[in-house]
Amino acid sequence: MGSATIFFWLQLPNVTKSYRTALTITGIVTLIATYHYIRIFNSWSEAFTVASKDGGDYEVKLTGAPFNDGYRYVDWLLTVPLLLIELILVMKLPQAETVSLSWKLGLASALMVALGYPGEIQEDLSVRWFWWCLSMIPFCYVVFTLAVGLAEATSKQPSPAAASLASAARYLTVFSWLTYPFVYMVKSVGLAGPAATMYEQVGYSIADVMAKAVFGVLIWALAAEKSAVEESGKLLPN
Amino acid sequence: MGSATIFFWLQLPNVTKSYRTALTITGIVTLIATYHYIRIFNSWSEAFTVASKDGGDYEVKLTGAPFNDGYRYVDWLLTVPLLLIELILVMKLPQAETVSLSWKLGLASALMVALGYPGEIQEDLSVRWFWWCLSMIPFCYVVFTLAVGLAEATSKQPSPAAASLASAARYLTVFSWLTYPFVYMVKSVGLAGPAATMYEQVGYSIADVMAKAVFGVLIWALAAEKSAVEESGKLLPN
Repeated sequence: MGSATIFFWLQLPNVTKSYRTALTITGIVTLIATYHYIRIFNSWSEAFTVASKDGGDYEVKLTGAPFNDGYRYVDWLLTVPLLLIELILVMKLPQAETVSLSWKLGLASALMVALGYPGEIQEDLSVRWFWWCLSMIPFCYVVFTLAVGLAEATSKQPSPAAASLASAARYLTVFSWLTYPFVYMVKSVGLAGPAATMYEQVGYSIADVMAKAVFGVLIWALAAEKSAVEESGKLLPN
Repeated sequence: MGSATIFFWLQLPNVTKSYRTALTITGIVTLIATYHYIRIFNSWSEAFTVASKDGGDYEVKLTGAPFNDGYRYVDWLLTVPLLLIELILVMKLPQAETVSLSWKLGLASALMVALGYPGEIQEDLSVRWFWWCLSMIPFCYVVFTLAVGLAEATSKQPSPAAASLASAARYLTVFSWLTYPFVYMVKSVGLAGPAATMYEQVGYSIADVMAKAVFGVLIWALAAEKSAVEESGKLLPN
């Protein structure tokens, strides 16, 4: 995540001014994630000890300090609206549409994260499902808006390469986002204890790398391609 | 590793725009390695204590905390595909070939690292050899593609100096990569205990410095040479 931030920011001079705000935000998203993953790493390390047993095997024990998954939700509350805004900005829509889409998708995605948290910290399965369902309402709204609403914007990209990158970014968002509700369900379908917690953490981490760093690389590639097209004067009328 | 990162990034303004992405990634590879070597260092320190005995000698004891070699494999999973991509980018092949080679070599090398890990954490010699053999399949594919497939690209470099640097980078990759399977075998040929672990760590560390920092210097020299040729207008038709 940290390396992705440095990559995006070092690439700022290589794109035209129109795309620098999108690329700056792309780097901020992975920077915020870097910070929270350090907190998650430390919280995880403090929650467990590993010691050698007789016979050379290792034994993992709880230290009593709680593993705090709240860092993840604070991270999402900040980064999820930002990464939708970076996608909207790199599309270079008319200004009024950029502002209105940023507000709608930004607020809906923040609401989605906020509604997921009360269920995440619950052991009671019915309460977990209740908040999961509530959170899925803004989730479906965002994914639907991206999949359908931005399809038109994709078709207006200035070159075939740009259109295919925009399309890839849109689908990567939908695909990586769909992993989160499934990972959330790991504990809701009856899996419990250390194994469930481990699957959940691995699942969220992979989804985060896809949705932030890999997605950011697509945003950068799109910004670079559109910059090259604009600089060569081949920009089609928008 | 950290110094190499700073060197590569400070050199960014000294190469033309075409090579800045390659040089940025070169610095990211050594940055990721810096991070993981700090983790490896700390894990090693926590696994052993050194105390003085009667007679002025020192005694090394296990603390019970395990030495985690997983950091090395996470490092390789990220850096090995990236350093192949930096080599492909600095060759400046046609765009379609760059994208297709990056995917093929990137995925094959990640698979190679992933297949090596299950054997690395095994004491059982036959299991170690099994994963070693599996991991050697993508290894051979990558090394063969570099040694043969990129030979043609090397011959198309824009100056004799650039061609000889490209050739050196290609051979350094093949040579430094060949060290890894031999180091992996240290424990598979019957050596065990502290001595084997020490030889393995020293071997991997030397190979890493060659494959990342020294290799990066060659990438930088090649980018600088090609920038100079392009700026003096002597670029041959590609």
